[in-house]
Amino acid sequence: MVNTLPPSGLRLNSKGLILDPRQLLSASDKQIDFARLETLAGQSLVQIRDLDHETIVQVCKFAALLELTQIARHRPLAGKLIITAFFEASTRTRLSFESAAARLDARVLSVPDGKVTGVAKGESLADIGEMFNSYGDIVIMRHPRVSAIEEIRSNLILPLLNAGNGTDEHPTQALLDWYCLFKWRPELMSGALAPDRRLHLGVIGTPANMRAVRSFLLLALMQPHAVAKISLLSEDARPLDASLEAAVAASEVPLELVDANLDEVLPEFDAVYMNSIALLGGSYQELDQRYALRADSPFRKDAVVLHPLARKAELDVSLDDTAHNLYFAQAAGAVYLRQALLISMLGAIDRVPAGVQYLAS
Amino acid sequence: MVNTLPPSGLRLNSKGLILDPRQLLSASDKQIDFARLETLAGQSLVQIRDLDHETIVQVCKFAALLELTQIARHRPLAGKLIITAFFEASTRTRLSFESAAARLDARVLSVPDGKVTGVAKGESLADIGEMFNSYGDIVIMRHPRVSAIEEIRSNLILPLLNAGNGTDEHPTQALLDWYCLFKWRPELMSGALAPDRRLHLGVIGTPANMRAVRSFLLLALMQPHAVAKISLLSEDARPLDASLEAAVAASEVPLELVDANLDEVLPEFDAVYMNSIALLGGSYQELDQRYALRADSPFRKDAVVLHPLARKAELDVSLDDTAHNLYFAQAAGAVYLRQALLISMLGAIDRVPAGVQYLAS
Amino acid sequence: MVNTLPPSGLRLNSKGLILDPRQLLSASDKQIDFARLETLAGQSLVQIRDLDHETIVQVCKFAALLELTQIARHRPLAGKLIITAFFEASTRTRLSFESAAARLDARVLSVPDGKVTGVAKGESLADIGEMFNSYGDIVIMRHPRVSAIEEIRSNLILPLLNAGNGTDEHPTQALLDWYCLFKWRPELMSGALAPDRRLHLGVIGTPANMRAVRSFLLLALMQPHAVAKISLLSEDARPLDASLEAAVAASEVPLELVDANLDEVLPEFDAVYMNSIALLGGSYQELDQRYALRADSPFRKDAVVLHPLARKAELDVSLDDTAHNLYFAQAAGAVYLRQALLISMLGAIDRVPAGVQYLAS
Repeated sequence: MVNTLPPSGLRLNSKGLILDPRQLLSASDKQIDFARLETLAGQSLVQIRDLDHETIVQVCKFAALLELTQIARHRPLAGKLIITAFFEASTRTRLSFESAAARLDARVLSVPDGKVTGVAKGESLADIGEMFNSYGDIVIMRHPRVSAIEEIRSNLILPLLNAGNGTDEHPTQALLDWYCLFKWRPELMSGALAPDRRLHLGVIGTPANMRAVRSFLLLALMQPHAVAKISLLSEDARPLDASLEAAVAASEVPLELVDANLDEVLPEFDAVYMNSIALLGGSYQELDQRYALRADSPFRKDAVVLHPLARKAELDVSLDDTAHNLYFAQAAGAVYLRQALLISMLGAIDRVPAGVQYLAS
Repeated sequence: MVNTLPPSGLRLNSKGLILDPRQLLSASDKQIDFARLETLAGQSLVQIRDLDHETIVQVCKFAALLELTQIARHRPLAGKLIITAFFEASTRTRLSFESAAARLDARVLSVPDGKVTGVAKGESLADIGEMFNSYGDIVIMRHPRVSAIEEIRSNLILPLLNAGNGTDEHPTQALLDWYCLFKWRPELMSGALAPDRRLHLGVIGTPANMRAVRSFLLLALMQPHAVAKISLLSEDARPLDASLEAAVAASEVPLELVDANLDEVLPEFDAVYMNSIALLGGSYQELDQRYALRADSPFRKDAVVLHPLARKAELDVSLDDTAHNLYFAQAAGAVYLRQALLISMLGAIDRVPAGVQYLAS
Repeated sequence: MVNTLPPSGLRLNSKGLILDPRQLLSASDKQIDFARLETLAGQSLVQIRDLDHETIVQVCKFAALLELTQIARHRPLAGKLIITAFFEASTRTRLSFESAAARLDARVLSVPDGKVTGVAKGESLADIGEMFNSYGDIVIMRHPRVSAIEEIRSNLILPLLNAGNGTDEHPTQALLDWYCLFKWRPELMSGALAPDRRLHLGVIGTPANMRAVRSFLLLALMQPHAVAKISLLSEDARPLDASLEAAVAASEVPLELVDANLDEVLPEFDAVYMNSIALLGGSYQELDQRYALRADSPFRKDAVVLHPLARKAELDVSLDDTAHNLYFAQAAGAVYLRQALLISMLGAIDRVPAGVQYLAS
């Protein structure tokens, strides 16, 4: 069935691995559980643990369907108004959401920069949330403060999609990271993967103050059936805060802190997750140069690298042309993963044509 | 008839009074005079006195209809292009207009910030007006200079909607203020209200350098049948300029300047209008702290507070949960009032389906 | 046939010459060669010489058809996503492209300012190009560096439309300049114009560091059948760089450097092209005041002035009300010229209704 899906929806990245979403759908033994996706309607997504594992799998399968088919032509978000409120500047995440929305025919109210808002004059996020209630249907917010979520929700009636709150979480980034891993190895979605097929993940960075790394790690810890072990390399003596330590303690996935040169342990990893920039007391700090990856780094033959981008020197461009480059494919899937979330959260699953739903069954 | 209107169009604010637009339509003895609204096609709206009272009433009734029905689904502004030119930063007003436009399927060309325009390089507003002629169908402009209106109109062929020009006017704010008061007490629209039912308005601020207060006051002065008296409290020794003094002199509504503590006179007011920020010689000045309102201020039992927001300390958040809070409902109606204006000014009244027009008759 | 075209598509400028696109279509002895326009699908437009002369003529004829008809109502760019990436601030060019796109029902992802992008954090244009691959269907880029084109194309799969790269080129500006000249004198499109009807062009500025002047000049040099002579006035001792000198040497159009007061040679010119601002080592430099044009400058009776705007003192507003003012008409045609390019490059020629194509035949 999947072979009959039109290839016209396929968009390719310019270098590195090209992933085919059909494998994700083929490997999955069950059809997409749209009823489960419908439970997301009207809900907020603030942290990765707002979703259970089965829902995450369904979101990823729906994203694959969106990547493969022309659902966008049916304008499932026509008449919907999406507010992108980026009080911390971003282009990659904001444009990805706005592209996702526009292709589904939603309208976007864009706040690309806190400096042009009442916030600059001292307006509270609670008042801004109240303002948004009558202006749109969902709010996608990025903010440099962890507490911004709580503040805006004091008045906000609309669903809220957290696109990064300070050093806390960036859940849609983690979802698209794993959507990419699932396309790369669909067997990871299965609940019955042989232990020797599970991943040894190398995570480079400081989850305590890097929100993308935190959310990725939290989602990894939810998947003992897919992750054999996590090795964490950080320049920080205490890379986990109390909340993360609790999550590690509660998970069946073993996590070890590694105090070694990256090149010594790199050959053990199936997949490496790294990030560039840590928020530290309101300013940005780049990753230590000794954690840099290059084309000649001692990778396992089929190992892959994920990186949320933008990058600094830690991810050398010499890697781009190698088969270790999964980060371009990771970025290329972002729009579809976010479309799957927007359609679900905006209660528009029923606008996905039955024929397309059938294709996925 | 009104009872059969679908409630699905109703959007609620999170706190304070919730207003039902049906009461405005029910109380009104006449159907909406669409022919009168059609006279706005192609016209500009620069100051509140560009509209007569009867037209203002019809605009508010049309706004109520928009709030109650699904007219937006008929895409009355499809193919129309709206330019929002905010040479003075604003989020609240700009997003409100852009939300209004997007929900009616208009397209928006957004200039959120004068700093990214040719203005920053010294381009004249006359030249920018000429540029806009070929780029859109209407211009919504905010500018820190009073004279900006005159400057851009020297070449502008398109209709112009003034969203605030320096210390002068902000007419759509005044219209949405009164749209809210009409929803709160529909009898105010009537020409035959008993004198003891007319409002005693307390206005806190300096109309001479606060454009929202100026436009609100000018519209209040046009309504002797609805306003018994206006008490004006200002920290400024001369809160009215010559133009406002002439408007007061020409009106049947008595206006008194009050030099007292707010709490002494507050029990007399049916409705209080206040604002945060005065433009004073190009910089902003906050309202004096002695004019602050709180939940325990000595309000008349059913008195309401209007405020165009954003706010500073003068409007304490303790008021939000009280029945005096009309400002959240005021903000929630902004989108509909602006839709009514845009549809009328863009000559799209005839795209409102006849069935919906009939509902309103 | 052309007389039956609906005039409703005609938009007028406020002052100066009003041009009728019908004359351009009437004068042209051949119908629009849509097959030739279809060859632009998926192509980039980086420099004026990416197009041959015959294609440029067809683009201009298509622009005239767009200006005259209601093609926009057929939503030829519905479902297309256009990225406007302006790493150097601009309003005029960006809004012109966004207006062009919106009227054809395309969606726009707008990057109005490099400061809100990852570029500000040091992200490479190559990585940004890779990001754009999955976000849209075409990229319109302006950048202060000449090399930006090469940098972004290292990863970019999408077609690229150059909206100005440093001191190099601004090809769509040159196309709309000549679209305006063709509307003014349709005979210029003909390959068989008598020598004494060809234009003597006066070009004021420094093509070596003014990209609009460079592209205009390069297109002029491609048209010996329309241009008798070019006189170049510049405050710079060497206004042509090696690349431009080569283009002059390869052209049949004679070009002379004039070291005289403008008023002495102005009476010889049929058309004057001037610009305001030169990029010089990363900063802007205004045109020398001795090159100013005013209403009382000694123009030939029917001479016209083109200027890409915005302007400084070199183009006095006293000219606006004269018949020498072709620059307002030039600006008014920009949207249609850019629509013709976008429809062609996005492969949407086949969405232009056959009836409209027939009208043009």
